[in-house]
Amino acid sequence: MTETTAPSSSSTTTPAVVPDAAQALVEKHRETLAQATEALQQRAFHSRYPESPSPKVHGEEAAPTGLKAHEAALGAQFESLASQPTTGQWVGAEKSPYGPELGVTYPELDVDAAMEAATAAARAWRNAGPEARAAVCVEIIDRIHARSFEMAHAVMHTSGQPFVMAFQAGGPHAQDRALEAVTVALQAQREVPESVVWEKPAKGEPIRMQKDYRVIGRGVGLVIGCNTFPTWNAYPGIFASLATANPVVIKPHPMAILPLAVTVEVAREVLAEAGFAAALVQLAPENPGGTLAKDLALHPAVKIIDYTGGPGFGGWLETEAAAAGKLVYTEKAGLNTVVVDSVENMRAATGNLAFSFSLYSGQMCTAPQNVYVKAEGIATDEGELTAEEFGEKLGQAITHFNKDDAKAVEILGATVNDDVRSRANDFAGLAERLGGTVLLAPREVEHPKFPDAVVRTPGIILLEAADREAYTNECFGPVVFLIRTESTEESFQVATETVREHGAMTMAVYSTDEEVLAEAREVAADAGVALSENLQGQIFVNQTAAFSDFHGTGANPAANAAYADAAFVSNRFRVVTTRRHV
Amino acid sequence: MTETTAPSSSSTTTPAVVPDAAQALVEKHRETLAQATEALQQRAFHSRYPESPSPKVHGEEAAPTGLKAHEAALGAQFESLASQPTTGQWVGAEKSPYGPELGVTYPELDVDAAMEAATAAARAWRNAGPEARAAVCVEIIDRIHARSFEMAHAVMHTSGQPFVMAFQAGGPHAQDRALEAVTVALQAQREVPESVVWEKPAKGEPIRMQKDYRVIGRGVGLVIGCNTFPTWNAYPGIFASLATANPVVIKPHPMAILPLAVTVEVAREVLAEAGFAAALVQLAPENPGGTLAKDLALHPAVKIIDYTGGPGFGGWLETEAAAAGKLVYTEKAGLNTVVVDSVENMRAATGNLAFSFSLYSGQMCTAPQNVYVKAEGIATDEGELTAEEFGEKLGQAITHFNKDDAKAVEILGATVNDDVRSRANDFAGLAERLGGTVLLAPREVEHPKFPDAVVRTPGIILLEAADREAYTNECFGPVVFLIRTESTEESFQVATETVREHGAMTMAVYSTDEEVLAEAREVAADAGVALSENLQGQIFVNQTAAFSDFHGTGANPAANAAYADAAFVSNRFRVVTTRRHV
Repeated sequence: MTETTAPSSSSTTTPAVVPDAAQALVEKHRETLAQATEALQQRAFHSRYPESPSPKVHGEEAAPTGLKAHEAALGAQFESLASQPTTGQWVGAEKSPYGPELGVTYPELDVDAAMEAATAAARAWRNAGPEARAAVCVEIIDRIHARSFEMAHAVMHTSGQPFVMAFQAGGPHAQDRALEAVTVALQAQREVPESVVWEKPAKGEPIRMQKDYRVIGRGVGLVIGCNTFPTWNAYPGIFASLATANPVVIKPHPMAILPLAVTVEVAREVLAEAGFAAALVQLAPENPGGTLAKDLALHPAVKIIDYTGGPGFGGWLETEAAAAGKLVYTEKAGLNTVVVDSVENMRAATGNLAFSFSLYSGQMCTAPQNVYVKAEGIATDEGELTAEEFGEKLGQAITHFNKDDAKAVEILGATVNDDVRSRANDFAGLAERLGGTVLLAPREVEHPKFPDAVVRTPGIILLEAADREAYTNECFGPVVFLIRTESTEESFQVATETVREHGAMTMAVYSTDEEVLAEAREVAADAGVALSENLQGQIFVNQTAAFSDFHGTGANPAANAAYADAAFVSNRFRVVTTRRHV
Repeated sequence: MTETTAPSSSSTTTPAVVPDAAQALVEKHRETLAQATEALQQRAFHSRYPESPSPKVHGEEAAPTGLKAHEAALGAQFESLASQPTTGQWVGAEKSPYGPELGVTYPELDVDAAMEAATAAARAWRNAGPEARAAVCVEIIDRIHARSFEMAHAVMHTSGQPFVMAFQAGGPHAQDRALEAVTVALQAQREVPESVVWEKPAKGEPIRMQKDYRVIGRGVGLVIGCNTFPTWNAYPGIFASLATANPVVIKPHPMAILPLAVTVEVAREVLAEAGFAAALVQLAPENPGGTLAKDLALHPAVKIIDYTGGPGFGGWLETEAAAAGKLVYTEKAGLNTVVVDSVENMRAATGNLAFSFSLYSGQMCTAPQNVYVKAEGIATDEGELTAEEFGEKLGQAITHFNKDDAKAVEILGATVNDDVRSRANDFAGLAERLGGTVLLAPREVEHPKFPDAVVRTPGIILLEAADREAYTNECFGPVVFLIRTESTEESFQVATETVREHGAMTMAVYSTDEEVLAEAREVAADAGVALSENLQGQIFVNQTAAFSDFHGTGANPAANAAYADAAFVSNRFRVVTTRRHV
């Protein structure tokens, strides 16, 4: 490894030390990062990784090659990660929501040895500087992209997402979010100049000092993955920490290890090729029922934690891990909210909502759940409706949208766990317990290829605004609450209060009245939640675009962070100044 | 109040709502903020507020007018703050470290009513947008600057700082740090565009969406002031929170209320004149021995806490308040470190250090305490020295520097509390308890104007590297530990370990060897502390320049934040996106 001075740091006396191979990546990805930076500043449309799984984009061989790679992984030891410090044990008990056992096992990490290796690897990574780190990260993401079809199968058979969604959300969309995190992190680090000659006017000669500013990491970044979006929700934390000079240890959900194992394999390959220690990225898999996440969270070497998952452990991290001095970024759960005041085009609006409720069976952290509708007088292009009539039409749209089993499964995917299945299977019981009325029952859908998959269409329960206890728990999965209010004003009030108290990742409003829309924007700002207005085309409330839409706000209890704003990256690094007279 | 659309937001559908008077301030301070932003990007020398108390700068009347204003405040009720929600009680028991009781009383805040008023005031402040908030903040700082002489007396007679230092550190330097915080905050908010038309390529027509981004605050920012730097250490938090759309409640140290009362008076005047509620800035004074800081920290309306002070309460905030979901920014205490390897110019180096040790009697959070010196073979221009010989020469420099009482008090100031005084008064006892040898005893200095002031020159205790327990407690005040090590390598090792474990705000190194200096930079990066190399002129290790030097790093236990990097501001606000089809 030759020590090369990065071109941009030539004036400092503590220059970046960049291995040749990494410097080549700096050149290779300079334009990519320039474009991404520009997109981010404008928050305009930007996507480096094409979302279509079409052979026109990826070539005829990509899909079969990816499938073959996935099939080769099944029932085998994931050997490449045995280069990590391991205990000698192999773990893993993944079972596809579509039925089959994956049968993959992974080397168990020797945590203390892994932390030591990570910490030892950090100095060279720190001294390489922000530009080299960003370029290496882009190379990692590019190489992950090249395995998008393989990843799609891995994501599908761990999360239960339908194939095309698994390709998109688990592949290019996750990769775009990864690149976004790298770009935000690079931008934040670039704000600190590497060097300045500071000149203070004084009697006679000015006082001159050379000052150098060096970005340093905080320590090991722990990323705790979730079952439903193993890559999409993990990449922002992984790449934000890595780009800001922190080694990363990734603890996948026990039922969704494979997508992150592939990710870590790629990252370690690229890091080693670029002249750095593979120990900068390590995977910490475990069997179901373990306590590894907690143990890792409290490990002294861990300084940063990114978590996606249930509010129980998320809350523990926000209190206990935060009290232990860790930086904690969480995304938990919330009551995603729709307020219906009036509707310009019922067919388009209910069609749009039907898609949002159906996509991956409502198992997205951004899927709407609570629909607040004033009891009477909803002006629509299909006449004035009551809340119940609106609910019926929404139900018809959901039914119509999912009428064909073979097509429906390509949207609904499979239910991911027993908790979700129990709600879908005993929907009438759920409605009864909540004191509501079933407006639409979920329908059993048969998967043509995977008979063991449990697939259900969304159901709707009608509740009253007064039943606040009934609708202030997140019912993850294909459950919609239609909540009848006295007025849109009450809808907004309840929405504000419930979002402030219980959180939300998304909010939507339907109104033809500009004043109501203006009020909705104030409500969104008061409650700290992103707002989509009158969606009726190919944009859905549960989907956000990297580089343009923030995912979450960090301003309500659903999540304490957003993908990816300055707050998401700027505390992951620190600046050390050295100064001397010149 | 007329609603004016801020010029930069004309394309959005949720425009900033800026009162006319505030809009005038936007115009007035546009150039000031542009210059400050440019300085920040380069980290070049920048100072808006001249540090010299000379009549040539401020006019002949400024000094006597300031003194008169200060004298008018003494022994009286601080009436202007009675416009806050109050309990009807008056509190305050400040006593100058120079002797006199201040006799000022302040209206006690009705906390719940104050939080309600603050929260109610926040919406208009939020909706005014970043540019208007920044401009109003600059106007506040300018008006504080106009009262710098009055402030100097208030700071001197609460902190014990000597007059010129109180003028500079309590006035212009604090004001520059305030402007820095406003500028960093504005820059972070400007990174988020107000609006974009997002265009996604699609079959046929692209999908077009209008997206607006609105900055929202987090909630009430609580700023807990300290006794020694009531304004300097409070302004960054106050102005960072205010500029990012958060109302602020300031809880001054019970012995240093007056400087922040003047500050709050000015802020409320300016806010009201600019068309906002004065409740955006409120003062929460209390008598000594109260629990108000704790009560306020846990108040549900408080979301952000800035604290400067001892590690006990700071540690409580970092655990308990953090666990309660508050954003906590602390500056506590540490072991500021000097490593002496070799010295080019002993006279200049020991003179520089003598000033650093003497200034305000070592009662700066940045004042050096632990001087690591290899036992033998220190190459200097005065020959090769042993550690003890170096210590003796350092002692001579301190003695020489403080030889004239009347001049010495203008540097030493007065000891601020009994804790500091006890160490200075029983220095031999301290050395004995620590198992060290007194190389220089503190000298009693008589203050020509204030006979009751307790003024002591710094003393030096010689310790061995093995006595780690002895030198790993902060001994705030005029105490220097000269710690004898086997080698500079050991000095660096002990420095790294102690700073990592106990924290430090500053580190200095003296060496004529470029390799040693390079290693010192790695040590600084490893320990996460700012480094000053070979200071021997008019720049001192305990002074940092706004816009150029970060104050603290946030990377070691002395402080979890730095004045003022992106991490200091970017989590104080959130962004809410609203999007719709166009």
